[in-house]
Amino acid sequence: MDTIVALATPRGTSAIAVVRCSGSLSPKIFSDVFRVERTVHNHLYHFRYFSVSGELVDDVMSVFFENGHSYTGENSFEIYCHGNMLIVDEILADLCARGCRIAEGGEYTKRAFLNGRIDLSQAEAVADIIHAKNMRAVAIAQKQLSGSLGEKINEISKKLLEVLSKIEFAIDFSDDELSSNNGESFEIVNDLDCIIADLESLISSNKFHKVVESGLDMVIIGAPNAGKSSMLNFLLGEDRAIVSKFAGTTRDIISENVKIGGEYVRIYDTAGLRDGELCEVEKIGIDKALAKAEQADLFLVMIDSNSDLLPEFSPKILKKIHKDNAIIVVNKIDLAPRYDAKTFLPNIEHVFVSIESRKNLDLLKEKIGNMISKSYAACDGLDIMVNRRHVDILRRVFDFLCSAKNAIIKNISAEFIASDIRQALDILGDITGKYDNEAVLDRVFANFCVGK
Amino acid sequence: MDTIVALATPRGTSAIAVVRCSGSLSPKIFSDVFRVERTVHNHLYHFRYFSVSGELVDDVMSVFFENGHSYTGENSFEIYCHGNMLIVDEILADLCARGCRIAEGGEYTKRAFLNGRIDLSQAEAVADIIHAKNMRAVAIAQKQLSGSLGEKINEISKKLLEVLSKIEFAIDFSDDELSSNNGESFEIVNDLDCIIADLESLISSNKFHKVVESGLDMVIIGAPNAGKSSMLNFLLGEDRAIVSKFAGTTRDIISENVKIGGEYVRIYDTAGLRDGELCEVEKIGIDKALAKAEQADLFLVMIDSNSDLLPEFSPKILKKIHKDNAIIVVNKIDLAPRYDAKTFLPNIEHVFVSIESRKNLDLLKEKIGNMISKSYAACDGLDIMVNRRHVDILRRVFDFLCSAKNAIIKNISAEFIASDIRQALDILGDITGKYDNEAVLDRVFANFCVGK
Repeated sequence: MDTIVALATPRGTSAIAVVRCSGSLSPKIFSDVFRVERTVHNHLYHFRYFSVSGELVDDVMSVFFENGHSYTGENSFEIYCHGNMLIVDEILADLCARGCRIAEGGEYTKRAFLNGRIDLSQAEAVADIIHAKNMRAVAIAQKQLSGSLGEKINEISKKLLEVLSKIEFAIDFSDDELSSNNGESFEIVNDLDCIIADLESLISSNKFHKVVESGLDMVIIGAPNAGKSSMLNFLLGEDRAIVSKFAGTTRDIISENVKIGGEYVRIYDTAGLRDGELCEVEKIGIDKALAKAEQADLFLVMIDSNSDLLPEFSPKILKKIHKDNAIIVVNKIDLAPRYDAKTFLPNIEHVFVSIESRKNLDLLKEKIGNMISKSYAACDGLDIMVNRRHVDILRRVFDFLCSAKNAIIKNISAEFIASDIRQALDILGDITGKYDNEAVLDRVFANFCVGK
Repeated sequence: MDTIVALATPRGTSAIAVVRCSGSLSPKIFSDVFRVERTVHNHLYHFRYFSVSGELVDDVMSVFFENGHSYTGENSFEIYCHGNMLIVDEILADLCARGCRIAEGGEYTKRAFLNGRIDLSQAEAVADIIHAKNMRAVAIAQKQLSGSLGEKINEISKKLLEVLSKIEFAIDFSDDELSSNNGESFEIVNDLDCIIADLESLISSNKFHKVVESGLDMVIIGAPNAGKSSMLNFLLGEDRAIVSKFAGTTRDIISENVKIGGEYVRIYDTAGLRDGELCEVEKIGIDKALAKAEQADLFLVMIDSNSDLLPEFSPKILKKIHKDNAIIVVNKIDLAPRYDAKTFLPNIEHVFVSIESRKNLDLLKEKIGNMISKSYAACDGLDIMVNRRHVDILRRVFDFLCSAKNAIIKNISAEFIASDIRQALDILGDITGKYDNEAVLDRVFANFCVGK
């Protein structure tokens, strides 16, 4: 395999830059560059870097990692030079002149995988740690890096192998049929049900993916002129959205990140929902509002207590709204109420406020904060959270196991059942990785940055 | 002294980020964070970073540097974590929670200086290496970091001390007068002349500063419509400047970096120089052209061979132009020459070309390339190149030594002479640095980035 080099720190002027080199040429290059015979593994040395033409390039620190004890598993070394990109480029060019080539994105981690240092789910975790947008995502990726998902998959594989050996045993001794009489097939169906439940639980962990990766979305929705934009401005603590006494003021969706009760959410202020003769722009605004509501995690439903104009929700949205993810904000309580707001979605908590006279706003903010914290808390204990790629694999495994289970129930030839389970096992292996599946590897390492 | 922490690599997503910590708390923090008793100096370990509240922050590599053997000279350590700024900020915040504070720009190098690891000229070299804009500047800064300037200053200081001891000996034994009879004063004047010559040579190295730091500037100058903009376009290999048959087309100065003969220069195309009734814009353009020519390092003087309009240069510019830094390009040789171009600045090489019919352009480019290489070559062997701060100091030392020399010649009391030399010595020390001169230190470290 080629010896590869790359800058492992961002380009830019700084105190230090880190250049990595990995591959079979690295011992020779290391001693040529630093003019040393041999160095102690993992020991940081102060060296002068001499180019292939014998010129001093920089005063650097460098460390050599021995074969089998490095990140990649290969002989490799790192150089900590001054953080000037001219020097970095000179060093990279010099290492290339000595037979290296510039690494591709993720190539170090790919080698770590190919050399058996980490499994594929751990390799994915490395990219997740680097690209995580919040500390929750970092924490879950750390668990995955430490092998949480790999262990779970190995556990499932082991169970599947046991099932397979039971089936194969049956095939060998009972003429290609599982005897339902002696409870053999019941036992196997039971085993499969357990494994299927494991798969479902793993797959369902993906529902946290969006929340962990990009945080919760909270939509402010309701009839026109109920105070949605005033609500947004109140939560942001600034005049972000235009507020007027005219219905239909907000048309485009306005969104901002805000921290409430210690947690960030993205708030979306939307056009008021109403029917009737509306101008084209307002209609588009309402469509956008409804589409946003369908994707939202949390809902602030705004009602004007002295109007009988209530928001009309599609069944799709009504199904999404429940007591843990929504608050009904009954606004303008200073005015004589014309309508008993409690009759609207009675299962969901109602908070009565006046944004204009700032009545009950602290209480409302506290309740919103609690709702947000509770929603995030669901992901807090999470040990495993599968990604899109894992879900695809797990669903295919799931399908094969369901097929196997049905085959047993229908008393179909055990050879078919065994074949389903073998295929399930084979596909499941793609989560932690097989060396020969280039397409899978390419997909995993496509998102890496160079130097990792 | 406080224990300081900083990110030493640029902010941004990458494979690795480096966090540095230096100061008396670092041994305790190191063992608390990594839950280890003691580690080997300079050995790189794979650790898990645990925050003060016991949470896993990241899988990292870390190395401890013992007191007296670290960059700062203090107990210190470096952490190589994943290159996610969330993780970096978490680590920085955690280290601050453990009693550190964020370092100021240059504080690590300042401590290295205060702890006697490097002198002040070496500290400056560190910043120069990081901010150098080309490899020549890097190379000279490397020499300064290795102590070239410091050694030279120490050599001068030693000579000055010898002179001073001769004078003090004379004061002790001969009643505050240098005897000119026995050659004592001649000898001292000779010594001082040697030292003054050393100072002059050091000061003159500053003339390379601009060339090394920002490269050579080459101005294309000449009468209107001589082909200056065509020349620029030819050298750039693209249609950068607008070319027309009308005199006065170029008004603003157009500048581009271009590599000719392996070296970069910045080329400036300027307005054609002419007298007479000109519009205001063209007049401003001509003023700008002349001002640029006064600062240029190299000159391409364009002449139209079939026009008798020759550029009129001020004495200041004429004084700057000589055979090593200028080429006269006689353009449009396809047309019948109306003028014997060789009579214009006859000491400078003339190259006869036609840009339009591309005649002799390769020859011209070669000659321009040679001129550029020769001009850069002057800085190639440079071991020492003083900066503005050094020049200020050296000039003040120079003045004191001239004053001392004159005092000797005028037979003034030896006590005054000794005082001049003592002051010279004292000031000279500012180049390599005195611990108590806060103003000098602040000036030197103001330009550093955080983490260095």
